[in-house]
Amino acid sequence: MSKTAYLDNNATTPLRGPVLTKMMPFLKDSYGNPSALYNLGKTAKLAITSSRIKVAALIGAEENQIIFTSGGSEANSTIIKGYCLSKKKKQGHIIVSSIEHPAVLRACDYLKSEHAYEVTLLPINSSGVVSVYDLKNSLQENTVMVSIMMINNELGSLQPIKEIGEVCEEKGIHFHCDAVQAIGKLPVEVKELKLDSLSLSAHKFGGPKGIGALFIADKNSVFPLIHGGGQEFDFRSGTENVAGIVGLGEAASLVHKKEAEITQHFYRLRYEFLKNLNSLDSWTVNGNLDLSYPSTLNLAFNHIRGEALAMMLNLHGISISIGSACSSSSPKQSHVLTSLGLEDQTIKSSVRFSFGYQTSIEEIQYAAKTCIKVVNQLRSLSTQKI
Amino acid sequence: MSKTAYLDNNATTPLRGPVLTKMMPFLKDSYGNPSALYNLGKTAKLAITSSRIKVAALIGAEENQIIFTSGGSEANSTIIKGYCLSKKKKQGHIIVSSIEHPAVLRACDYLKSEHAYEVTLLPINSSGVVSVYDLKNSLQENTVMVSIMMINNELGSLQPIKEIGEVCEEKGIHFHCDAVQAIGKLPVEVKELKLDSLSLSAHKFGGPKGIGALFIADKNSVFPLIHGGGQEFDFRSGTENVAGIVGLGEAASLVHKKEAEITQHFYRLRYEFLKNLNSLDSWTVNGNLDLSYPSTLNLAFNHIRGEALAMMLNLHGISISIGSACSSSSPKQSHVLTSLGLEDQTIKSSVRFSFGYQTSIEEIQYAAKTCIKVVNQLRSLSTQKI
Ligand SMILES: Cc1ncc(COP(=O)(O)O)c(C=O)c1O
Ligand SMILES: Cc1ncc(COP(=O)(O)O)c(C=O)c1O
Repeated sequence: MSKTAYLDNNATTPLRGPVLTKMMPFLKDSYGNPSALYNLGKTAKLAITSSRIKVAALIGAEENQIIFTSGGSEANSTIIKGYCLSKKKKQGHIIVSSIEHPAVLRACDYLKSEHAYEVTLLPINSSGVVSVYDLKNSLQENTVMVSIMMINNELGSLQPIKEIGEVCEEKGIHFHCDAVQAIGKLPVEVKELKLDSLSLSAHKFGGPKGIGALFIADKNSVFPLIHGGGQEFDFRSGTENVAGIVGLGEAASLVHKKEAEITQHFYRLRYEFLKNLNSLDSWTVNGNLDLSYPSTLNLAFNHIRGEALAMMLNLHGISISIGSACSSSSPKQSHVLTSLGLEDQTIKSSVRFSFGYQTSIEEIQYAAKTCIKVVNQLRSLSTQKI
Repeated sequence: MSKTAYLDNNATTPLRGPVLTKMMPFLKDSYGNPSALYNLGKTAKLAITSSRIKVAALIGAEENQIIFTSGGSEANSTIIKGYCLSKKKKQGHIIVSSIEHPAVLRACDYLKSEHAYEVTLLPINSSGVVSVYDLKNSLQENTVMVSIMMINNELGSLQPIKEIGEVCEEKGIHFHCDAVQAIGKLPVEVKELKLDSLSLSAHKFGGPKGIGALFIADKNSVFPLIHGGGQEFDFRSGTENVAGIVGLGEAASLVHKKEAEITQHFYRLRYEFLKNLNSLDSWTVNGNLDLSYPSTLNLAFNHIRGEALAMMLNLHGISISIGSACSSSSPKQSHVLTSLGLEDQTIKSSVRFSFGYQTSIEEIQYAAKTCIKVVNQLRSLSTQKI
């Protein structure tokens, strides 16, 4: 029996079985357009409403504050551009962390290059965490938006969302949180966190690819990105991806109130992985385990290249990535690891292991064991060369 | 056996069996992120490339001119906003027909209200067709874009795309065509039609909802709508909806070079429907059958309300719509029928029947027969009332 381990769950997760089961009717007989008034249409409409309720429940929002999008990137672009461009003069100041996902950073770049927006990138400390003190110091008269992610996708580092929410609320600044890596892992209550908006993506927690949602407390102040027939409360047009929405709803209800259990599972996996790696020397953890969510491990293995390790592990059926690997079209050095202040050499030696709801202890043991073997092989090769 | 007829295929079509079959692996074991470099990722990447080739082949484009989107509305918003806002001064003049889909019209509204764009709406004649003469007369020094649909979604009327393409080419104006209702019905060659861009949507021709594509001859001059990790040639970010893309590719290859056959099928259905309706009096065709694609019939039944007819037909298992029914949130009177110059009374009496690849002669006969019965019932009721 050939062994495999899929340890790139921050990139994407397999669809949960019950999610696919719920989606199937909408890929078969229940094909109606949700806007239609006949029965086939009403069935689809009802399914969307039911999913909306589940997603709203998951994050403690109202139903009409949930907008289905094609994923996390669309949700981020929609709120960042849609909120900032709804400002009359289309100018102002935005604060984001330096380790945001490109979907946030590049939407900000757009506002900067095409409009008169200034953007402040908050640094992170050696644990991969932004400081609320820095945030307060960066505030300007004209700051209109703060966008900070909940869990970083490369490090797993947890950001002080609640504290930031309080600062923003006090100043009346729109606070957006990219929670794409947090949903399904941490319990999230938008009111408690004082969020004005939040992005999530189904495929990061057992739902299908190509569907996500944007929570917006108050849609009125935001321009839509996609215009048309008026679906999604006239905020996001286009015939709805019914099967996708149903899948997202089901994934949401499967993780709802299960976050503690899921987190426990990840702690167990991380502990097991590190324990198994113990016999190997010369490797370090990027970031700080105590301040990181346990499903991500970003490790640097001295004297070898991350790419080489990932490629060799692939030959053993083990899937991991270097950095975020968000798109192969941008094989640049990770901006997150650079922000962390790591040496070039360390960054080049780094890889990311990320666990999923379905990851087993057996997979972890196989991956760690193989990792030790491959790292030793690579190291002996590099020594031979010298 | 209870009889049904689904005659709202312009709203959406059922997924073709082979399309679902091809999608299934990507909803199950082949769940990799296409950006990842391990095998699971490469499989997904390969599937996307293969779909891109199929979609490109369908419309005679190059592979790298095809951008996958979440549907027709996103494709339209992307090109209209993305092209016009890439102009340095963000101002100019756009020409569209008055019967475009809201996805086009409202993107233009946005450019008008938020930027200094002027928009000319070309009228249609009594056949539901724009005139190239009017187009030429509307051209201004500062006209940067013309967007005309290929087949209208409410009437089925065919627009003179080739002639418009020639005018635009001569003047160096970007010509976009919303071909959402044409793909899978007519053979489309973007070069021959001199198109600079074209929108299509999978769910209108047997593919899944929530996926579509934008053809752009030259991406360099267009701003992306969704920013992020750099997928789709760095033009449309977001983890790809792999299953959806695979479904679109398969739907594309199933209709490719079958358009003549498909059109023949629709002519047969339309002929049968009209023949069966012959015994009923006091109804008219909105638009002109000779200048319309045969899968759409927009009919006005004197003395009754379209809504009432649609609701009654629903009780008999027959699905049709009034106007476009693009979104239930906008139950306004059809702008298309208004543009046609119809009397208010006629518009209120109108319904749309639209056929699909899967529609059978038996369904048509059942629908026509039931339609006659229901129209007569409604008329006798309305007479009784008077
Ligand atoms: C002509 C036309 N354009 C655009 C669209 C929008 O496509 P989608 O619903 O896939 O966003 C539709 C259908 O809704 C249409 O009929
Ligand atoms: C933190 C974060 N934000 C946004 C995204 C984008 O989500 P999607 O790929 O669904 O567009 C991702 C993942 O790719 C992510 O990890």
